[in-house]
Amino acid sequence: MNTVRRLRQLRGAIKRRGLDGLIVSNIINVRYLSGFSGSEGMMLVTDERGILIIDSRYIEQVKDECKEVEVIERRLGLVKTVSNLARRLKLRVLGFEAESLAYSGYEELRSAPGRSKLMPTKGVVERLREIKDEEELANLRRALDIGETAFRRFKGELRPGMTEKQLADRLELAMKKGGAAGPAFRTIVASGERSALPHAPLTETRVGKDGAVLVDWGASWHGYNSDLTRVLFLNRISARARKIYSIVLDAQKRAIDTIKGGVRVRDVDVAARAYIEKKGYGERFGHGLGHGIGLEVHEGPKVNRANRRLLKDGMVITVEPGIYLPDWGGVRIEDMVLVKEDGCEVLSRVSKVLNEAVV
Amino acid sequence: MNTVRRLRQLRGAIKRRGLDGLIVSNIINVRYLSGFSGSEGMMLVTDERGILIIDSRYIEQVKDECKEVEVIERRLGLVKTVSNLARRLKLRVLGFEAESLAYSGYEELRSAPGRSKLMPTKGVVERLREIKDEEELANLRRALDIGETAFRRFKGELRPGMTEKQLADRLELAMKKGGAAGPAFRTIVASGERSALPHAPLTETRVGKDGAVLVDWGASWHGYNSDLTRVLFLNRISARARKIYSIVLDAQKRAIDTIKGGVRVRDVDVAARAYIEKKGYGERFGHGLGHGIGLEVHEGPKVNRANRRLLKDGMVITVEPGIYLPDWGGVRIEDMVLVKEDGCEVLSRVSKVLNEAVV
Repeated sequence: MNTVRRLRQLRGAIKRRGLDGLIVSNIINVRYLSGFSGSEGMMLVTDERGILIIDSRYIEQVKDECKEVEVIERRLGLVKTVSNLARRLKLRVLGFEAESLAYSGYEELRSAPGRSKLMPTKGVVERLREIKDEEELANLRRALDIGETAFRRFKGELRPGMTEKQLADRLELAMKKGGAAGPAFRTIVASGERSALPHAPLTETRVGKDGAVLVDWGASWHGYNSDLTRVLFLNRISARARKIYSIVLDAQKRAIDTIKGGVRVRDVDVAARAYIEKKGYGERFGHGLGHGIGLEVHEGPKVNRANRRLLKDGMVITVEPGIYLPDWGGVRIEDMVLVKEDGCEVLSRVSKVLNEAVV
Repeated sequence: MNTVRRLRQLRGAIKRRGLDGLIVSNIINVRYLSGFSGSEGMMLVTDERGILIIDSRYIEQVKDECKEVEVIERRLGLVKTVSNLARRLKLRVLGFEAESLAYSGYEELRSAPGRSKLMPTKGVVERLREIKDEEELANLRRALDIGETAFRRFKGELRPGMTEKQLADRLELAMKKGGAAGPAFRTIVASGERSALPHAPLTETRVGKDGAVLVDWGASWHGYNSDLTRVLFLNRISARARKIYSIVLDAQKRAIDTIKGGVRVRDVDVAARAYIEKKGYGERFGHGLGHGIGLEVHEGPKVNRANRRLLKDGMVITVEPGIYLPDWGGVRIEDMVLVKEDGCEVLSRVSKVLNEAVV
């Protein structure tokens, strides 16, 4: 794990904000900084220390996972333990994660005796997480590889008459067999008109012989996630479907062509959106172009037209334009892209060629 | 759904606390009160209204799921929308869920213009959820049935040489085939010495011919969960294993025999614990006896020796004593029990008879 380097970077960010320490309560941030994959724990990070606080359930697990950080087994509540530690370490200005610490935790910190001055922070660790290091990239590539291998197999087995739920289960099982801890999120398999719902819940709807099938899936590997979308056609492809598909694919290509370090995030969204608008479907593309991905399926940066920040070398984002026509269906094409200094690398490889004959 | 009745009960609890309204931010509580199964949304409940606030992604979904509540599609942020609503409804004293609303959400409420007086609350909806209605019991029974049917099949397929991970995948797939939305939590399959870890993470360890295998699993059905534990022996059972197993089983029986409405929760824990202590293993039973179960795998009431509250008709709890011997292994036996006025009903049925010959 690169936790030593990550903690060093975090210390820089803490100092720049005038803090003597930061309480990390977001469990994904805790994992990023310590390697701890359990579901309950917090960290206290100061200029000198990086302390993970857990309970007795996780004692064995941290021996494997968290070799580079100090670990304290708590006897009292999490917040109570952190707050006692902060007092012992004489931290004057103590930051906490405002978007993750519950109000009740804040109240507990605030009413502790001899307390530090409390400062709410937002997105400090999340910003670090946007830039992936080599180890993270290796995990993302593996999560992608597992997802893609499973998808190719799944495609060969897809037959009309299977239900969306059966298909999702099958794809998820194939990912597990390929070594995934599980799916990165509940797989979407949306057939026919149902593909017009960007977040279609799975149903017992049977995939029709002539319909399209939208599949949005990903694998989880060592905490890292993949997230891809493809649309398959089981038989004949109508002229309309062909047209919509090619607009979405071209829009995606335009977006990807703009990606490199130093470009404004919003400009990537706009590259795809302007093209879809020009083709007359602007109102049918109702969501942002994509999102960062890593330990969370959805993390920073948000790729939409409001984000004026700059892309940076090492960010990994999804690029997923879509056109959704109610009572007809939808097409979304999603890939994962690594931002580089002078361009980008599309990390996903599974084919986007329109295929007429899955069956 | 019984959301009308649930909202009525909640209104009573809100009034008793002197509130004009409650912001429900815990998404499980939102589901309980509205039927909404999405992952983002809040409710505002007042004496007259019960309003679910969602975004455009969920518009189709709520048409099916939330027929009995008012739904508002938000254009602004969740907290912003709730806070605007509270102002329009002229609510003077507004409760919020202190354990679920993040500090940043609280700050946003607090700084809204024309704001109400804010009152933190804890466990208001959670208390209602402890008592299951008929619909909830039917869902819990179905979640149990799916889990048990899958387990019986799994037991027949268990062979030495399979890895823990393979076995967990197999059991989870069988639950999905049985209709489960998925496993209620990541299945624990812990072989040999690893069963001494109450929360053993899955590994590629192969199940040995002579070892014990501890399986802790459950299914999710319409949001409701089952949670059971059994220990299987693949071949010969040592005298020591036989002894530990029978102590745990007897301890469980003693606990179950005490369960009925009006009994203190702690007395159920103590019934099992005192017996295990008498047998000399008190220090090897390091966790509470059980927990409530429903929309969450772990919910109220906590069944441990500190809980002085009374059991009530309609609560569903797990009863799961265990003895864990480091470097040897552990035995835990877990069932789900419905509390009744004059006794209890053990809801789970899968055998606890020591079986020597799974293979």
